[in-house]
Amino acid sequence: MPVFTTNTTPNADLEFERKKTTFDKTKLTNLINGSVKKTLRRNELRAIIESDPIFSNTNNAYMSRTERHISALKKTIHFLKLCRKHGIYNKETGEITQHDDFHLFVYCLCDDPLPIALHYIMFLPNIRALGDDEQQREWLRECRDWNMIGCYAQTELGHGSNIRALETTATFISEEKCGLKGGGFIIHSPTITSTKFWPGTLGKTANHAMVIAQLIDGNGKNHGIHNFLVPLRCQKTHKHLPGVTTGDIGPKLGYNNMDNGYASFNNVLIPRRNMAMRFATVNENGVYSKTKNVSEATSKVSYITMMDVRVLIISDSGLALARACTIVLRYSVQRRQGYIEEDTNNTTKQEQQVLDYTMQQYRLLPLLASSYIFHFTGRCAKDTLTNMQQRLLSSSSKDHPTKIEMQDFHATTSALKSFCTTVSADGIEDCRKACGGHGYLVSSGLVELSNTYLSNNTVEGDNFMLPQHVVKVLLKLIPAVQSIENKHQLMKLKKMYQNCNSCYLIDPLHDMIHSPDSNSGYSNKDVDIFDELNDDTTIPFLLKAFAHRSARLLLQIAKSLQDYIMSGKTTMEAWNLSLIHMHNASQAHSLYILLHNFHALISSKEKNNIGDAPLGTNEVHILKQLGYLFGYYWIHKEKGDYLYDNYFTSEQITYMLQTIIIHKLLPTIRTNVIGLVDAWDFSDFQLKSALGNYNGNVYQEIMNSSYREPLNHSDDGYVQYLRELIVGDVAVWKGNTVIDATQNQGVQSKL
Amino acid sequence: MPVFTTNTTPNADLEFERKKTTFDKTKLTNLINGSVKKTLRRNELRAIIESDPIFSNTNNAYMSRTERHISALKKTIHFLKLCRKHGIYNKETGEITQHDDFHLFVYCLCDDPLPIALHYIMFLPNIRALGDDEQQREWLRECRDWNMIGCYAQTELGHGSNIRALETTATFISEEKCGLKGGGFIIHSPTITSTKFWPGTLGKTANHAMVIAQLIDGNGKNHGIHNFLVPLRCQKTHKHLPGVTTGDIGPKLGYNNMDNGYASFNNVLIPRRNMAMRFATVNENGVYSKTKNVSEATSKVSYITMMDVRVLIISDSGLALARACTIVLRYSVQRRQGYIEEDTNNTTKQEQQVLDYTMQQYRLLPLLASSYIFHFTGRCAKDTLTNMQQRLLSSSSKDHPTKIEMQDFHATTSALKSFCTTVSADGIEDCRKACGGHGYLVSSGLVELSNTYLSNNTVEGDNFMLPQHVVKVLLKLIPAVQSIENKHQLMKLKKMYQNCNSCYLIDPLHDMIHSPDSNSGYSNKDVDIFDELNDDTTIPFLLKAFAHRSARLLLQIAKSLQDYIMSGKTTMEAWNLSLIHMHNASQAHSLYILLHNFHALISSKEKNNIGDAPLGTNEVHILKQLGYLFGYYWIHKEKGDYLYDNYFTSEQITYMLQTIIIHKLLPTIRTNVIGLVDAWDFSDFQLKSALGNYNGNVYQEIMNSSYREPLNHSDDGYVQYLRELIVGDVAVWKGNTVIDATQNQGVQSKL
Repeated sequence: MPVFTTNTTPNADLEFERKKTTFDKTKLTNLINGSVKKTLRRNELRAIIESDPIFSNTNNAYMSRTERHISALKKTIHFLKLCRKHGIYNKETGEITQHDDFHLFVYCLCDDPLPIALHYIMFLPNIRALGDDEQQREWLRECRDWNMIGCYAQTELGHGSNIRALETTATFISEEKCGLKGGGFIIHSPTITSTKFWPGTLGKTANHAMVIAQLIDGNGKNHGIHNFLVPLRCQKTHKHLPGVTTGDIGPKLGYNNMDNGYASFNNVLIPRRNMAMRFATVNENGVYSKTKNVSEATSKVSYITMMDVRVLIISDSGLALARACTIVLRYSVQRRQGYIEEDTNNTTKQEQQVLDYTMQQYRLLPLLASSYIFHFTGRCAKDTLTNMQQRLLSSSSKDHPTKIEMQDFHATTSALKSFCTTVSADGIEDCRKACGGHGYLVSSGLVELSNTYLSNNTVEGDNFMLPQHVVKVLLKLIPAVQSIENKHQLMKLKKMYQNCNSCYLIDPLHDMIHSPDSNSGYSNKDVDIFDELNDDTTIPFLLKAFAHRSARLLLQIAKSLQDYIMSGKTTMEAWNLSLIHMHNASQAHSLYILLHNFHALISSKEKNNIGDAPLGTNEVHILKQLGYLFGYYWIHKEKGDYLYDNYFTSEQITYMLQTIIIHKLLPTIRTNVIGLVDAWDFSDFQLKSALGNYNGNVYQEIMNSSYREPLNHSDDGYVQYLRELIVGDVAVWKGNTVIDATQNQGVQSKL
Repeated sequence: MPVFTTNTTPNADLEFERKKTTFDKTKLTNLINGSVKKTLRRNELRAIIESDPIFSNTNNAYMSRTERHISALKKTIHFLKLCRKHGIYNKETGEITQHDDFHLFVYCLCDDPLPIALHYIMFLPNIRALGDDEQQREWLRECRDWNMIGCYAQTELGHGSNIRALETTATFISEEKCGLKGGGFIIHSPTITSTKFWPGTLGKTANHAMVIAQLIDGNGKNHGIHNFLVPLRCQKTHKHLPGVTTGDIGPKLGYNNMDNGYASFNNVLIPRRNMAMRFATVNENGVYSKTKNVSEATSKVSYITMMDVRVLIISDSGLALARACTIVLRYSVQRRQGYIEEDTNNTTKQEQQVLDYTMQQYRLLPLLASSYIFHFTGRCAKDTLTNMQQRLLSSSSKDHPTKIEMQDFHATTSALKSFCTTVSADGIEDCRKACGGHGYLVSSGLVELSNTYLSNNTVEGDNFMLPQHVVKVLLKLIPAVQSIENKHQLMKLKKMYQNCNSCYLIDPLHDMIHSPDSNSGYSNKDVDIFDELNDDTTIPFLLKAFAHRSARLLLQIAKSLQDYIMSGKTTMEAWNLSLIHMHNASQAHSLYILLHNFHALISSKEKNNIGDAPLGTNEVHILKQLGYLFGYYWIHKEKGDYLYDNYFTSEQITYMLQTIIIHKLLPTIRTNVIGLVDAWDFSDFQLKSALGNYNGNVYQEIMNSSYREPLNHSDDGYVQYLRELIVGDVAVWKGNTVIDATQNQGVQSKL
């Protein structure tokens, strides 16, 4: 079969679009990466990975799961060697985790999930968070030397979000009974539903697991769930240890390199000191005690592991969506369909670029805006988390984050995780669909991106469960605001919430509760207020609308809960009957945070444009357009909520879509669309897409992928089965009349 | 590894739910299948398939594409033999297509796509529609005898919906020049973008293709696209004929059994009579002419092939969604998560069934309702199509469907195809997500269902493109209504549209155009109107709301188009700027049709309950609840459109969600949820789901699937790569201090 060589001449449509770009895209690239220096380092590391044939992803789509897993292990070992070779590890501890370059290497540059990932993402941070000093010393050394490869085993076959219901037990057993010095614990899976199920790296790779189990002390008392380091496999032979059964859980929608695993324990004895003992201990007599001198804030550190992963997920949501946008938008300026004018003579005319259909712009440009906005909010959340982690480690309790701050951060990251991953997963799929038929090809690059990304909607708190956490925290503001009697108290409350994301809710809640008749809407005012898009008025206008909706939905839930309880329902019944509203309220909260953070970033760059990644006026201008589009798009999308209380009139809603979105924002952003996706600066290696290459050549790349399909190199199907049908036994297959086989040769080609 | 034997004792939760069912589910099963007789026949055929090990799907998830394709070919041959054995073929012609049992066999019972499918779905119907009598005789005989296996090759690499732009050429060549008696055509692919791409069955299976190409006559004049039968492979050896290149296009998101293919033609000569000549011919001198005595209606028959597939897709949308609902709802009554009451003593309490969360009901029960409603509208559309096909074949032109009727049917099936497949694809994915983590497992049965189903959003008219066709047709009503001056003219227009789905638009359009100030909303009326759910008032109320929205959105588009044109835009520009609204209008039209058809079916069953699948009062009652839920759910979901023109007030909208949906409809349907999914009567073989089995046993089935994963039977990953890391060269992997490997044995289990 002919293979088209990759054309290095850029596609003319792409070239044309690139020339239209009104800003310097390298400035945005540096902003996205964090600094000029980081971009340069990224380029250096990327060159190492992409020039190395071991990291090739070309044949991924044709491998079986076993082949892909093994190929990913091969990459893992090679990757770790490269880290050593290029000095990307901590020279004192031998670890490479938490090194900036490492994250870049693993997540952004190999572009193929490595089975060892959960060792880094969950196992090591968990040891650091929950092990006492001695345990950290010992266990981290074992990790450094690769005697220990671990995973984090929490979820069970029958138990997910409700971790209190986990069934695995860790029962204290005295030295006398078990023979281990200082006593031990018996780890046991009492039922099939208690089988540990889902942990990444558990199936085939890990030889240890941090197992979350119900701790039962020497007196048979249950102290709830705690963490236990359980050896799974022999460190010399990798064979299972007695009583331990683990394996891979089987094929999944995506993420199939990873050996997500199951584990079942049949009375497995571990040393007592394998319980993580930073915050609680069990002594040699089986007596449980909380560790003394642990402040409330410090004890919260155990939540940090989960928040850390959640923040990572928020940050990655922008990145994943940006990849999909890059592919579909590059393809959408090259793909042409439909004539611009009705005409019967169709032989000479060129068809229209599909991106020039308003519908295509309306589907895709808000997603492009979201990718930027999610990314920067992810960075904000990361900064806040780092700040809180540092303060938690301080010896002075004055430095510790307050309980309100911790809860607020938990609520906000929960809301953002739920919202951003929903928009990104749906958005990636929308990008795939917006590629038309070719989006259905694995070679589009969107199939594996979408399928693997979809796990983010469920892991680390299901997106439909998290809103409950959000609302539970935010609702606390309502009695606080209700009890305000004067300006002084209002100021005091705002001060308590000054470091909190939810601070913005105080003013609108105060207005709604204390002056319910005030018209806080824009109705009846002249629509001219919308006409000029400028930062001084537009962003405050949008943020006010987002804050209003968020506050109103929260108040509606409070009222609904109260009404149910007054009518005799239990708290749980009332809560259950209000769940649908909570989903909405959590989304409204996210929208405010996202636009607020994005605006704050651009403003700070605009006002004080020095530092690591300076922006010029043109870059600031285009980023602002993305913010406006995000704001107006979501107000229009949620128009029902704004018409509901007449915050906006129907005319205003129509004006937003017709005049602001369709006539102003979409055309402005459309001009810069290729610049905006190029600024993300994904390499062709990373995109793995026949549709999204930097230089285009879409159709050649598709055909080259087709030619690689192994089915095209096999005749087994014909030889084994089809042949029998076509030339087989006449009695079985043919009709009543036996046909002269030569008679039909007329329809065969003679050239 | 232990394999759990399948427990034949039904799960207690499922048993309990089944006992609550208030109706006779076999009556609904018969209604779904069409009649008692059809159910019995289905059971008979199902037993044949399911007892035959060749049809086993157990290992599908572990096969490579090549293996799956070959396995599906094996099933194809065996299936055709079984059809012969059991008399499922037309004894006169040897064909088995268009035989009721055949569709059942292929689509519903094997439950694994057969590569030959497009031969039946597209190739044979196309010969019947476009071949002249002699061609039909000759070609169908070749098909009967399996000398000819065909596909339908329309789409090209660079050309999808805009078929006028297809590039493949069929150029007449005289006998003198080519040596074929009577002359021939040269089939040619002039560019890479003209490569035929996507046709199912083309890649490896077909030896002929019906190729759609630009016909260029003996004078070099282009007559637009026509159909040509092109031999691809030798009927004896299955080798490609000279000038023909075909192959499989490579891995896709789903539908990977099927060899969707590409084909490129390098000046391939075919006989002149290989052009399908029912409606147009080219004579031996290369002169093109339309066939005489073909009525306008009859010439429309060429559209029928596409409508036929579209109707099939509408019908299947309900079936596919019902499968997903069956899986997730059976799982949701067995899966438990979260305690019902806050309590610190969690050791003895049982967790709550996840279906008892309002959010879970709100996510899933409207989908269950949709599955029923789509299925029956699919049947309606099928009946209408059959009726039109029969009338088209009539010799009396009075019997032929009118142009208005044809266009209306085209618009309505386009709208329904777009809407039903969008809701079903999104709905199947929602069902998958609503299974929590386990929905991400291939063994959930939802992964392949979803991935394969998703192609329906793009094929046979992209869901974002079709609304244009819908609106183009519906808009014609507006000048017609505008020109009405009296009751007589109104009656006349209604008569013209009496057989049309869009007839319902005439009254609300008439009101809006001729009495724009009349309040056709329900605002300001007492909300008591909603309080009693009964057929006499509720369905007309819902239909009126649906019709109102549909008419208003259509009128808004007409106005928007007019405004743009008045402001100097071209028609095409105005059209482009209105695309976003068209999507919405097409959806609104679909909603009316769906509820109307469903209601008509139930009413007819209620009033005249005899015939093939009689229903009792209880069955009618529960079906009505599904109709109500569908209606109220969509009004609430589209509340923005109803608040927009004050058709409903905010209080009414809230009342619909809180009182009608949450308090009345969800609990009523929740009681019957297992009965309603059981009524679809999918077998475990069909569902292929560890989560959706009839008897439950969810956790055993998941574990059994995990044990089958081939990765669990291979140590290659460890031996080839991991081993080096864990026990390999200390200098490469270990830290600064060499650790005594024996020192750490304390953490190893000693049991």
